[in-house]
Amino acid sequence: MGLVTLDNINPAIRSMEHVVRGPLFLRAVALEKELKQGSAGKQFSEIIWASVGDSHAMGQQPITFLRQILGLVTYPPLFEDPSIPEDAKERARTLLSSCMGNSTGSYTDSVGIEIIRHHLAQYITERDGGIPSDPDNVMLTDGASAGIKSLLVLLRCNFEDKRTGVMIPIPQYPLFRASITELEMAQISYHLDEEKNWAVDVEELKRALENAKKTCVPRVLVIINPGNPTGQVLTRENIKEIIKFAHDKKLIVFADEVYQENTYGSNEFHSFKKVMTEMGPPYNSLELCSFMTCSKGYLGECGFRGGSFEVVNLDPGVKAMLMKSLTVQTCPNIFGQIITDIMAAPPKLGDPSYDLFIKEKQERLQSLQERADIVTEALNSMKGLACTPVQGAMYAFPQLRLPPKALDAAKAAGQEPDYFYALQLLEKTGICMVPGSIFGQKPGTYHLRTTILPQLELLKVMLKKLRQFHEQFMDEYK
Amino acid sequence: MGLVTLDNINPAIRSMEHVVRGPLFLRAVALEKELKQGSAGKQFSEIIWASVGDSHAMGQQPITFLRQILGLVTYPPLFEDPSIPEDAKERARTLLSSCMGNSTGSYTDSVGIEIIRHHLAQYITERDGGIPSDPDNVMLTDGASAGIKSLLVLLRCNFEDKRTGVMIPIPQYPLFRASITELEMAQISYHLDEEKNWAVDVEELKRALENAKKTCVPRVLVIINPGNPTGQVLTRENIKEIIKFAHDKKLIVFADEVYQENTYGSNEFHSFKKVMTEMGPPYNSLELCSFMTCSKGYLGECGFRGGSFEVVNLDPGVKAMLMKSLTVQTCPNIFGQIITDIMAAPPKLGDPSYDLFIKEKQERLQSLQERADIVTEALNSMKGLACTPVQGAMYAFPQLRLPPKALDAAKAAGQEPDYFYALQLLEKTGICMVPGSIFGQKPGTYHLRTTILPQLELLKVMLKKLRQFHEQFMDEYK
Repeated sequence: MGLVTLDNINPAIRSMEHVVRGPLFLRAVALEKELKQGSAGKQFSEIIWASVGDSHAMGQQPITFLRQILGLVTYPPLFEDPSIPEDAKERARTLLSSCMGNSTGSYTDSVGIEIIRHHLAQYITERDGGIPSDPDNVMLTDGASAGIKSLLVLLRCNFEDKRTGVMIPIPQYPLFRASITELEMAQISYHLDEEKNWAVDVEELKRALENAKKTCVPRVLVIINPGNPTGQVLTRENIKEIIKFAHDKKLIVFADEVYQENTYGSNEFHSFKKVMTEMGPPYNSLELCSFMTCSKGYLGECGFRGGSFEVVNLDPGVKAMLMKSLTVQTCPNIFGQIITDIMAAPPKLGDPSYDLFIKEKQERLQSLQERADIVTEALNSMKGLACTPVQGAMYAFPQLRLPPKALDAAKAAGQEPDYFYALQLLEKTGICMVPGSIFGQKPGTYHLRTTILPQLELLKVMLKKLRQFHEQFMDEYK
Repeated sequence: MGLVTLDNINPAIRSMEHVVRGPLFLRAVALEKELKQGSAGKQFSEIIWASVGDSHAMGQQPITFLRQILGLVTYPPLFEDPSIPEDAKERARTLLSSCMGNSTGSYTDSVGIEIIRHHLAQYITERDGGIPSDPDNVMLTDGASAGIKSLLVLLRCNFEDKRTGVMIPIPQYPLFRASITELEMAQISYHLDEEKNWAVDVEELKRALENAKKTCVPRVLVIINPGNPTGQVLTRENIKEIIKFAHDKKLIVFADEVYQENTYGSNEFHSFKKVMTEMGPPYNSLELCSFMTCSKGYLGECGFRGGSFEVVNLDPGVKAMLMKSLTVQTCPNIFGQIITDIMAAPPKLGDPSYDLFIKEKQERLQSLQERADIVTEALNSMKGLACTPVQGAMYAFPQLRLPPKALDAAKAAGQEPDYFYALQLLEKTGICMVPGSIFGQKPGTYHLRTTILPQLELLKVMLKKLRQFHEQFMDEYK
């Protein structure tokens, strides 16, 4: 037997739960391989990936301007290509001149290239109607996840043997639970109110907080807006209530706002920073970290792992400690940074690339809007499924109302009922969705998370297959 | 006063020491800005960056084949460019077909793209003269640092209140000390033997281990070979001794082998895996993690943060836990992965790109070799500096023999003597080197780390400036 065994590894890693890429996902990966080799013995020929918020994987095409710049900064002979517009070349030159040795192959500042931080601060300022953002408060990371983790690490502090408590929504994106487990912090769960379209209920926040105080020191309140996996967009009124609560209870707010560009219909995104600033004293002194990415929005460039965050009202000495801790990993990858730059400072009216850029951006956002509506409608038309409208992000999170026989069958199989459903869905149709139990849900309720990301034709096929499967399933266990 | 203060953040972050990008580096960054603005009031006009192992920053040009592929996979219209050879296009097609949706903008497997893991395993197999490497044991990460940290996290386990001890060389690359501090593990320092060209002395390992056993449970032995900051290449005999020691003392070996392509003259790199396998039972059952990167070698593509590691003899259940923990951050960035692919599977004899590739590779390695020799020789020709030969990696680590007056002046300034020297060097010449105290050194000895990376002409200028400064300094404090 070796030295390192399951008994003597980090217990936090051992008890960490599988995230979206858990056993069901791995089964889908294996099944896809079998399908390609012709050995699956299934009546379908492909996996429909509705499990991961990955636009490109599901056929979204990249934005031309962005990819021109990525091409230019890695492969300089492209500067000679007359088909690439001058503004793309100009931007690529500016970016290269910000890299040491004029090469994207060199390290950058640990918190990201200065000019990109400036662009990002300007972007945030414009987003918030002129409320200023200081580039010194804006830092780049390898995906939003790395920033979330760095800030959790920073705030991890025991108080007379009580651990730091982090309030997270249920359902939540599992990165939070996994990171809290790994860091041996204390998870404080508060339930979102499905009946109010997954709003945050302040009474529920209070309940969760008071309850947690016995065993930990609550310090951080995590809000995911627009919601993952729940697809809601919080109202301004709701955000105001949350800010008041956080202020009264002396909590630092982590606003996971990575889907801020993904809102549909009349649902407007309100940043926590804007709302707290407009509320004035004492609320504008709230300590806030807001997270952003270029994996979502209309760009959807997940593979490059671009992310960033802004800290607001953070003590300068603490910020210096944060920056020190970020230097250990040298720097975030350069392409994630460059994509962040294009997100923050896209072509302007009058630039040669502007028309095509706007056209491509709007097409992608309109298509997402259309798919959001189709998914909401289709899910609600199936008996035994009930779905709040997809207002934002890239997900629908319908409730599964399973008949008692299905619950019994799941129990007999030793599976969570929604896992039982999702696994059968995968095995019978090739559709890969994520069971609600991965994100957490109110006891006795069962959900399913699907993305709205398959391109339109495939989405229609998927919904049709889902309907057939669902009807058979409900019939089988009625 | 805000909620988050220096008193209530993570104490491990507070006590973490500054790494290479510490105060001296930041002063150099500020000085460079002043120089550009013309407000520095200095007699020199540029900073010479000899502080960071960043080839591209110092003018090394990228490898054509690599950049063609990076261009192709981000900007597909390049497939129409007749000036790009067919083998580059073929490789780019293969890589794209391994990405979901045929786009580098999609997430990959959490441990990296399968075909790249296969190429990497093949590369390791060939490196080790046919000793097989299993692709399942090879994983990709955002730079080698991320892998080192993930494996430290995995092995972090308290044993009846005793922490996990990690043996690290002194001097060492500060990532190790910083990570151990952040993770609240126990650092066990063993000194390299400068008089034996920074070899690992087994008696010293024993001393450090026995001494540490009182306060922690030693589990991991870190070896950096070729050495950073010390530039040595361990002999096969020395590696054998280390393996015996690790086996006898039941230690897991972390072999930081990121500079394995950077050896000069007759100094041959021997991988820990090869040596332990050739030693046969019981030594071939050693549990080993070996780390690799594409930031070094002849590629030097630091900005893209490509890294990987191979685990050897790791328990399958433990490996599954490791893989689970890696899924939390979704996946390593795609460009780091693709560059790793090119490193692992470069053009082969007969391929259209082969001749140019080999020419470029050899030019870069020969130039490094030449610069290694020049630096060693120049440093040893200065009175008060003594430098072991640069056998590998990208660094020289000369000992500074400072006169008592200089030590007094440093003390009066409240600075470490080598920091005192390096700061004056920066302020008087614009040369940025790293004081040995950042890496750790035997008490009473003082060092300086310089890279060998400035291109030849600049390197000569730098060494001339250093000589002038050094003579003045020694004269001033004699």
